[in-house]
Order: sequence, then structure tokens, then C-alpha cells
Amino acid sequence: MKAFVMQQIGRVAVVDKPIPEPGPNDAIVRTTAALICTSDSHTVRGAIGDRHNLTLGHESVGVVHRLGSAVEGFRVGQRVAVNAITPCYVCDNCLRGFPSQCTQSLGGWKFANIKDGAMAEYFHVNQAMANLAPIPDAVPDEKAVYACDMMSTGFMAAEHAAIPLGGSVAVFAAGPVGLMAVQGAKLLGAGTVFAVENVPRRQELARRFGADEIVDFAKGDPVKRLLELTQDEGVDSAIEALGAEETFMNCVRATRPGGTISNVGYHGEGEFVRIPRLDWGVGMNDKTIRTGLCPGGRERMVRLLRFLETGRVDPTPMTTHRFPFAEIERAFGTMDRKEDGIIKPLIRF
Amino acid sequence: MKAFVMQQIGRVAVVDKPIPEPGPNDAIVRTTAALICTSDSHTVRGAIGDRHNLTLGHESVGVVHRLGSAVEGFRVGQRVAVNAITPCYVCDNCLRGFPSQCTQSLGGWKFANIKDGAMAEYFHVNQAMANLAPIPDAVPDEKAVYACDMMSTGFMAAEHAAIPLGGSVAVFAAGPVGLMAVQGAKLLGAGTVFAVENVPRRQELARRFGADEIVDFAKGDPVKRLLELTQDEGVDSAIEALGAEETFMNCVRATRPGGTISNVGYHGEGEFVRIPRLDWGVGMNDKTIRTGLCPGGRERMVRLLRFLETGRVDPTPMTTHRFPFAEIERAFGTMDRKEDGIIKPLIRF
Amino acid sequence: MKAFVMQQIGRVAVVDKPIPEPGPNDAIVRTTAALICTSDSHTVRGAIGDRHNLTLGHESVGVVHRLGSAVEGFRVGQRVAVNAITPCYVCDNCLRGFPSQCTQSLGGWKFANIKDGAMAEYFHVNQAMANLAPIPDAVPDEKAVYACDMMSTGFMAAEHAAIPLGGSVAVFAAGPVGLMAVQGAKLLGAGTVFAVENVPRRQELARRFGADEIVDFAKGDPVKRLLELTQDEGVDSAIEALGAEETFMNCVRATRPGGTISNVGYHGEGEFVRIPRLDWGVGMNDKTIRTGLCPGGRERMVRLLRFLETGRVDPTPMTTHRFPFAEIERAFGTMDRKEDGIIKPLIRF
Amino acid sequence: MKAFVMQQIGRVAVVDKPIPEPGPNDAIVRTTAALICTSDSHTVRGAIGDRHNLTLGHESVGVVHRLGSAVEGFRVGQRVAVNAITPCYVCDNCLRGFPSQCTQSLGGWKFANIKDGAMAEYFHVNQAMANLAPIPDAVPDEKAVYACDMMSTGFMAAEHAAIPLGGSVAVFAAGPVGLMAVQGAKLLGAGTVFAVENVPRRQELARRFGADEIVDFAKGDPVKRLLELTQDEGVDSAIEALGAEETFMNCVRATRPGGTISNVGYHGEGEFVRIPRLDWGVGMNDKTIRTGLCPGGRERMVRLLRFLETGRVDPTPMTTHRFPFAEIERAFGTMDRKEDGIIKPLIRF
Repeated sequence: MKAFVMQQIGRVAVVDKPIPEPGPNDAIVRTTAALICTSDSHTVRGAIGDRHNLTLGHESVGVVHRLGSAVEGFRVGQRVAVNAITPCYVCDNCLRGFPSQCTQSLGGWKFANIKDGAMAEYFHVNQAMANLAPIPDAVPDEKAVYACDMMSTGFMAAEHAAIPLGGSVAVFAAGPVGLMAVQGAKLLGAGTVFAVENVPRRQELARRFGADEIVDFAKGDPVKRLLELTQDEGVDSAIEALGAEETFMNCVRATRPGGTISNVGYHGEGEFVRIPRLDWGVGMNDKTIRTGLCPGGRERMVRLLRFLETGRVDPTPMTTHRFPFAEIERAFGTMDRKEDGIIKPLIRF
Repeated sequence: MKAFVMQQIGRVAVVDKPIPEPGPNDAIVRTTAALICTSDSHTVRGAIGDRHNLTLGHESVGVVHRLGSAVEGFRVGQRVAVNAITPCYVCDNCLRGFPSQCTQSLGGWKFANIKDGAMAEYFHVNQAMANLAPIPDAVPDEKAVYACDMMSTGFMAAEHAAIPLGGSVAVFAAGPVGLMAVQGAKLLGAGTVFAVENVPRRQELARRFGADEIVDFAKGDPVKRLLELTQDEGVDSAIEALGAEETFMNCVRATRPGGTISNVGYHGEGEFVRIPRLDWGVGMNDKTIRTGLCPGGRERMVRLLRFLETGRVDPTPMTTHRFPFAEIERAFGTMDRKEDGIIKPLIRF
Repeated sequence: MKAFVMQQIGRVAVVDKPIPEPGPNDAIVRTTAALICTSDSHTVRGAIGDRHNLTLGHESVGVVHRLGSAVEGFRVGQRVAVNAITPCYVCDNCLRGFPSQCTQSLGGWKFANIKDGAMAEYFHVNQAMANLAPIPDAVPDEKAVYACDMMSTGFMAAEHAAIPLGGSVAVFAAGPVGLMAVQGAKLLGAGTVFAVENVPRRQELARRFGADEIVDFAKGDPVKRLLELTQDEGVDSAIEALGAEETFMNCVRATRPGGTISNVGYHGEGEFVRIPRLDWGVGMNDKTIRTGLCPGGRERMVRLLRFLETGRVDPTPMTTHRFPFAEIERAFGTMDRKEDGIIKPLIRF
Repeated sequence: MKAFVMQQIGRVAVVDKPIPEPGPNDAIVRTTAALICTSDSHTVRGAIGDRHNLTLGHESVGVVHRLGSAVEGFRVGQRVAVNAITPCYVCDNCLRGFPSQCTQSLGGWKFANIKDGAMAEYFHVNQAMANLAPIPDAVPDEKAVYACDMMSTGFMAAEHAAIPLGGSVAVFAAGPVGLMAVQGAKLLGAGTVFAVENVPRRQELARRFGADEIVDFAKGDPVKRLLELTQDEGVDSAIEALGAEETFMNCVRATRPGGTISNVGYHGEGEFVRIPRLDWGVGMNDKTIRTGLCPGGRERMVRLLRFLETGRVDPTPMTTHRFPFAEIERAFGTMDRKEDGIIKPLIRF
């Protein structure tokens, strides 16, 4: 089969690999659609260290090709979505309720990290009974694929933000995860959603996904603006969806005492991420900082896919580009360089 | 009446002041016992800005001297304890469930901050119906006075730490608040409590209040030691009870993914408090950072006083020194310079 | 002033009463709009015992007429909404976080229960700083009045129901509170909302407020139908919005293990309300039964009014009838007898 | 091997059975110690229907005899404890966070229900990686065996009871589960624990495990007594640890508004369990009724075993009788008839 791999830091290629074999609890899925994620670029640049011929990708859907001997409840040929995070569900961290930290910090993230990813004609799914999710008939693959990471991560950002019913939330950065955080905040009863973003196309999408107000940081200090917009109180909750220290600090600054900062951005640089001391109430003003990593598991995926089935959520306006898998290298390059106003490129197999 | 005041930054004195008058919802309490808090020293050094002839102190008990016209449920002459934090309970932040942030960040802290404190022969209590707590007959003043701040703050540290039943917690620094955090962790079902402390007398008190193991940071990196003691997993929860950046960073480092860092230390220096990025899982390993300020209110005080009444908690081993109010300046100096192994000095009126 | 009172069990009248006087923490509001609630009928029929010349009503808005000497932050002439529940916020139950149980079970409910209600030209508001909520300019009185009880109670029903994001919920009975529970469930991220109702007009309104599916109990056992609609799993959450034992039992039956039954109906009859033992997992299947009473307080009211201000919620399709206050007796009779397809009658002053 | 079985309703016997075989994810444990549970008696009397030659028992510890091909992290010969509840951890209910309801209501309860139990020389453990817990060297089998059900269930009762720090809780019935609920309440910071019990030996054990006060229902209405003891407020939380309707109703009656009733008793009789309507605040006084079934899983077991390792908990005073497995029928009869003041009989293999 063909697989899109990271050959070493800074180099990608399409190579031939054998179709993977399932262990007793595993499944093999034949890929039908996938999305490229910015974190693939991070990986290729060396964010998590070097890798050799490791298949990239973690946002893919497909059909069941083979099932392990102990797997029940699924059948070959069934359409399935697989979350970017595939926990074992039996280790200590999983049993504690933190499956995204399966066995170790961030250990639920296995695709393109500790095993081959899903940007290949076939991919391997561990603990298949918990990690395969049936796709409803009414949901096409190109929609379902958004449940794998973008919806799950963005909605988690909103769930962690503890937004009071009718409360206010600021989402910092309206990239794909931030846009889904905007959508999630709206789904969860936010009264006012502020999207902090300066790119017009992303601002427009933010409005489409439910932002009540755009705060354009190119036009002035976004914290000052958020305080103005909230009668100097600050927002109930802030979501960091970029992964930058300055943005994180602005989240702490813009949040009122007792509020929650929900971090979902991948902080890829520096030894430290700083908290502004006074805005943090010298460590005593009841602000809470939450973090998390894309929650996986069939049960959640089924709930996410339901929003696609009923039409209440439609993330496909984020699909700015489409490529066949044969052009994966060109697609990756476009995404890597953020050319042509790209937000999410869809890959068809 | 005599009052112990901050005349200006760096200068304290005993001065004469009129006995305060109650508004309709207030009470005036005649002081019988008080404790000096390290934060009084911070205040005098200018941590919250300059003050002129502001009475110090926020850990006092006494008897009701006068009651406002609208106050019901109390009587003159009744023994009462008053928490360091005296919220209004009717502003937005109070109604949101964050009374320690009454009207603004840290705004529940009124004594010796925005009004005269309680280190005087009489002191004023706003919203008396909610902020006066009857002291049970069996509890002497010198015990009850520990409920005002030390027990409430230390126990909050443990409550915020979300320690699983039988789980592990590291308390960083065994000063008075840290010691009460150790006690609180034990009360709340911790399986293993580690106290990080190097002063022998405080180590001994930590054991007395329930620490299972002392981690002496003078003998080696406490994070490394905590990892050894937890089979490289880290602790479920960490409590910062010092107010130092290094200690805070060690809390993040020592906590396992999915765990909670409960900050209760007053961070008095620097523009920022840094989070170590990798130990924080690049912002994605489900670690939560909570903060808070001494919870007040009669209802909580009654629950704290019950522990003193039944003898389940006895904080008086922390009372290393006793002074009459006439010697308050000497007492303050001893505490300010942390001389003579002082932990908490009790002032009798 | 004119007041609409319960003279004794079974008898109502319009009488003259003096305009009430404010104590130091109180306000007097001149009424501009009000709604009649079914619970007024219950009261008149004797559900909470006899009352003599007690003013009825608890869903009113108006303008500030007078303010007590200790009230700050409001001004005479200001448009305000007042929740049906007006807690003191300083008693034990309020401090514990249960203001609707102020001083005693259901004790936050003061209007038309332990003091004169709000169906009069003027009404008295205790603890005014916490219980008056400014109405935004863009929100007319006839919308704002829905925040006093219908929205607050209905949304609480959904908040207590602990609906997972994308999960399913069944709302039993689409009266005004049930309709607002449907709206609340939708606001809080329900994936599928089932409304159990047989009256066509109410079914239609349920759809308008967000119900995905109507379960008509006149056409068959609603529990059986809900199980069919959920592949025999049952719903994640069920809301009892009627106050009938059979409906409550159906909530327990229709909810899956681990789910939540949120009771908001007023159970007015019988000595007991029965739980079906086997459907309750013989007391062991992790089903939770929550209850509650309309949450009040300015801070919540402000959040509710925001939904009206932004237009995200519009409850006025429930206003089936309008009367001037001069015709309050006719209005009450129509509501009492549930004539003419009445849902909520609006009273203008 | 020898196994103690239910031959049919009302009849037990020791029979020969083959040693079970492990599937890829399973383990076989050679039993060393076990406890008999009252629920075994319920089962034999037909509470869950008829069974034929099904091995009884669900509280056993032993050593690993064989491991399935996919099981990692354990070794043959290792001492292990296995919880009464052995979920799969990959079904919907497990992924939702309710593993005791694995696949269906109460479905985590597999031993002596849907497969052979653990009162045999060897027993089978499904999903072994999650369900085997290593026993610390310092903990003898006869202590460890209490973690399997009594500690896990009793402590859950206290965890579900949401007892405020320093709050009050009434535990109804001081059988083995009730006694561990008393211990759990004390571990979790209860200020006052009331044990409702009339048998002197159980009263004495309740005191030993932490009860502050005994309420003897043989000497008068326990609800009336609890109200007297709490200044007519009622308790913050009540735990039903018997499984009787009258006791459950008393829990509702004795709990203050806003409080929690934690049901852990197995309600084995009648079609309904009744809630007293007025004490339940006509369905509106913020009382919450929780239920649950013994939480399992290695991670929790490790935390429970830690309490035994450090000596903070010692449940062995409940071991009133000891028998070799050869005398299991006599032991079962004694327990079944509650003869000789029996509380828990230990079976040695």
C-alpha cells in the first residue's frame, strides 16, 4: 500500500509499506478520506523528535478491512471514523479518567507519534472495540472526518471552559480548532462568544460558526477591547486555541476572577509559558487553568457524529481545498506553507 | 481604643482610634484573641501599596459589642469568630460563587486592605449575618482563632487539590498554611501526604498533622525525590503553600498527567510566574491549575469550628509564642524577622 | 394601590392595599408587566395552605419606585426584572449554595407564599442589591418577564439534567416550563431532544423551541417509544416538567443507567412519589435524581436577559393571551380553567 | 477443581468443575482467601432469577495462575485482588464513565451473575489488565479481600454522599457495607457521622470505624432523633446501606434541603420504592438521590489497598468467623441465617 511518511526531520515522501496486520483487539481500516493537520507540519519539523519512515496523519475515516479475533460488534466493510487519539482504556491513566494521557503524558496520541499514522491506504487501530465509531448513513466521509480531531478538540476546549449558561467566552485564534471551539461554545450555552482573529476569511468563518463579536488584534490590544466589551469585568472563560505564550497570557488577563482559561493550543516553543502574576491575582483570584488533548473513544465520536447527522453542525465550510491522495505531497506543502488561504485540505482516497 | 496600625510602608505603631460604629448590616466585635499572619508583614513592606494608619490584622475572635439595626440571629455578648475574608454576598462575584473575589479580584479581603483590620481592641464586621460565626462553648478562643484563616485557607488548598480517595498529594512548604493543608489533605482522604520542607521543627509538625513522608529539599531535588517515591508516576495533586515561582514550577513538575496543582501561596514578586512547558504537556496533558483565597462565611466557619469542638483537629501546636496585646509591637517584630523558630504568635487581649 | 389577592382558599379578588415601604435593604418596584403562573392556581386551591388577602403573583417586571437606605447600585426609575425567588443570601442555606432553600425548604419562594406577591401595582423586593436585575434597553418588558420564572426554571431543569454534549434528553410535558426546558436543553448542547406531549399546539411550540422529535403519549406508551428511538438504550437524561407521579416514574424508566432524572415539576398530591424499583437498578444503576426550585439572583437574571437581548431566545410565542391589569380576574379564570388553548397570559399595567 | 455453586433456587453444593481457560485478555487466579457476602444469599434465594450450577462468590483474592496471550504487566504467581465488579472498559457505558453498568444496567457485576463466581479453587477474570490489582507485600490476603467489595462499596457510598468538609452524615444500618461507609465518611472529612443501628456489636464496630454518635432506632424514631441532634436542620447527607424502603424514606426525611441521599443498599423487594413527597420538597428542595454499584478496576483497588498498607484502615474487626474452604457449606449456612453474631466470614483456601 501507499503511505505518506516522514522520512526524517524536514523530509516527507510517499512510500510502499505492507498493509498492517491486526492483533486480537485491533482493526485495520481502508482509508476513504482524511484531513491534513497543522500538527503534521510540527511533527515533520521535529517538534516531537526525529522519526524514520513513520506514516503521518491522524484524521482519517474509512471502512473496516480486517478485525482482530477478539473484536466484537463491528463487521468488515462497515464505515467507521477513528479519533486522532486511540487510548487502550485499561491502563492507570485511562482508568483514572484521562484516556488522552494513556500510559503517559499525551500517550493516547499514538498515530504518527508512537506508531504509523493514518495518511495511508490502510491504517491500524488498537483497542478497536472502543476506538472504532460507526458513521451514520446520512453522514458523508468528508463530513465525518471532522469528528476525528477538529470537532472533538474544539468542543473539548469549550467543555473545559466551564462557560456559565448565558456567560461570555473569548476564543483566541480562529484556526480550525478555534473555529470548532467557537461552535462548541455556542452549542454549550454561551451568551456571548468573542473570536480574537485578524484574518478576514477566518473572521467570517468565526461569525458563521457562532461568534457574536470579532476582536481584531491587528486593530488594538485585544485584552483592552475585551474589557471594554464586558464593562471592565472580563470574560467568564477564555480559550487558547493557538499555542502561543502571548495568547495564553492574554487569556489570563482577559478572564474575570473565578473564570476559567481552557488551553487547547499546542505550545511548541520555549522552556516556559508565563502567567502574568497580577492578572492571576497573585495566585489567589480563583482563576482556573485547564488543559487537555482531543478526547477519543467511540461513545464520544457517536455523539459528535450525531451533530453532523442532524445538521446542527456543519464544519465543511472549513474545507478550503481538496486533493486526491496521489497529490498528498502537494497538499501537504500547501498546508505547510499556509498558502492560498488554506484552512483544511481534504484528501480523497 | 488601641489599634495596631501600619503608619506607612515600613512603619508600624500602636495608636488610639475611636471604636467603630455599625451600619445597619454590620457588627462591632470586642477582640479577645488574635494571630499575626505573615501577610501582615507583606502588607507593611508595601506588597499591596502604601497605607496610612490602617489597622493591621485579619485573624481575630471576640465577643459581639454592638449590632446593626438590620442584623438578626446574634446577640451582644456572644462569642464569635470572624473569617479573614468578609464578603458582601450580594455582588456579582459573590452571586457567581466566588465570594473571596467580592466586587473585584481579591475583594473579599477587606481587613487591613480596604478597611481597618482586626488587630485592635474592637473591630468592624460588614454583612454581619453572614460573617459572624458563633464559637461553641467547648472551643477556647485560642483554638477558634485558627479557623479565621489558617484552617480555612489550608483546608481550601486540599479541597481544590481534587485528591482522589487514597491518592497522593505533595504539600510544598510546611508553614502554617502548608501545615493546615497537610491536615486538610488527611481529612479529605489522601492516601499518602508528602510534605516538602527542610526546617526540622516544621517537618515534625507536618508529621504530627498527618504527613506520611517528609521530602527535604535541602537534601536533593524534591521533584526527583517525589518521582522516586511514586514509582515515577508523580503525585495526583500538588499544593503550593509558599508563594514562590520555583515551588510553583516544582508543583507542575511533580504532578502526574490529569492531576491538579492547587495554588494557595501569595506570589508577591516578579511580573510573571512561569509554567515549565514540557512538564505541562505542552499545554495538553490534562493538568489543572487552581487558585483561591481563604473562603469565609459563617456556614463554613461553623464546619471548621466543629473539628475543634470534637477534637479531630487541634492546630494549637503551631502556637509557638504568646504575647499580651500590650506587647504587639514586639510580637510583630519577632514574626516579621521569623526569629526564635516562630510559627504563629497568639495575641491575648 | 390595587392588588390581586387570594382572600381565602378558592376565592380571589382585587383589593386596595397601601404601597409597601422599604426596609434598609429593600426596594419597591412599580409593576409594568406580569405573567400568571399555574402555581398561582395551585396556591388558590390550597396547595400550600390557607392565606388571607395575600397578594398573588411572582412573575413581574417594572421600574424602581423606592430604594432602602442601604441599597447601592440602582436608581429610582430604572427598569428591573425580579426573579420569582428572592433569597436573603446570608442564611446558612444560601451560604451553602442553595439560595432557593433560603432559611428552610423552598424558603427562597417568598412572593405569594410568606409575603405579598407581585401581581399588584407595586411590590416589595427584599435584599434588593441581589434581587433586582436591570433590563437591557433592547428588551421589552413583555419579553423580560419570562426570565423571572419560566426561563430560569426551565433552563435549570436542563442544567440539572447533566446532558452530555450531543446526548439525548426527554422532556416530559411541554407546558411553559417544559418548553423552556426544551429550549434550555438545546442551548446546553443536547444532540437529540424528545418532547413528550399530546396537545398539538404545545407539540408545535416544542418543535419551535428545539425539540427534534415529539413523543405523543396519546399514541402509545412513551417509555416504549423512547426506547425504540434510542435503540433500546434509553435517554441520557429525562426532565420531569409536569409534577405527576406517573410522569416521574416514566422518567426513571426512560433513562439509561448512569443517566440523570431532573425533576422540576411541582408534585402536589399524595403522600409518596414512587420510584420503579427495577428500572432504578434496585438502587444501584448509577441513576441520579435531581430536584430544584427556580434559581434567582441578579447575576443569573443578567445572563438570562442576555439571551433575550441577542435574540437567541424568544419565549413570546408562549404568550397566547394579553389582558390589562383591570381584567386580572378574567385572566386568572381563563388560566385557572386552561381555557382557549391558553399557555401564558401577559398582564399589562 | 472444587467450586461452591448454586444448583438451583434454594440449593447450594460443592461440585467439581474444570479449571477455567483464559481468552486472550483474561486471567485465571488461584484463590487464597474469600469472603461470603449477603448478596450471595439473595442470589440463592432467587433475587436475580434461577441459576444452574453457577459458582457463587465475588470477594476473592489469590495468585495469578495463567494469563491470556494479550495480557501484559502481570506475571504468573503474583498476588492479586479482583474487585467484585469486572467491567470490560470498552463498551458504551464503560466509556461514558459508568463501568459498573458495563453493557447494561448492573452489567459490570459478572461473578455469580452472568458467569461463574469466585468461591472456587480457581476463578476467571475478564479484561485482566484492568481488573487485576497487585497486593502490596505488607498486606495479608485476609485484609486485601476487604477491598474487593466492602471497602469499595462502602467508600463509594461516602463519595456519592457529597459530604461537605466538616459536614454531617447519617449512615443507615451498620452492616459490613454500612460500617465501611462510616469509615469512608470519616476518611472524606465528615465532621459528624451518625450510625443508625440497633445491634450492640454493630454499634460498637460503628464507633470503632469512626461514628461520632449512634442512633438506635429501637429506642425511638431515628429521623426525629437526627433532627434533634442537628438542631432541626437535618443532616447534610444520608447513606442508605440496608436496602429497605423504610430506611430509604428515612434518608430522604433526615436530609436537609440541598443535601444528598446516597443509596448503596440493594432493594430486593416490591415493585416500587417510595419517596416521601413533602420531605422531598414536592420535588423542588434541591435534594439529590444518587445510586451506584461497587466501583471496580485496578486503579481504584490500588488506592484502596494503600489504606490497608499504611494501616489507616483495618476492616478485619469485621471478620467474626473463619472457615477452611472445605467447610464452605457450613460457613454459608451460618451467614445465610445470620447466626452467632456473624458479620463477615473469611474463607481460607
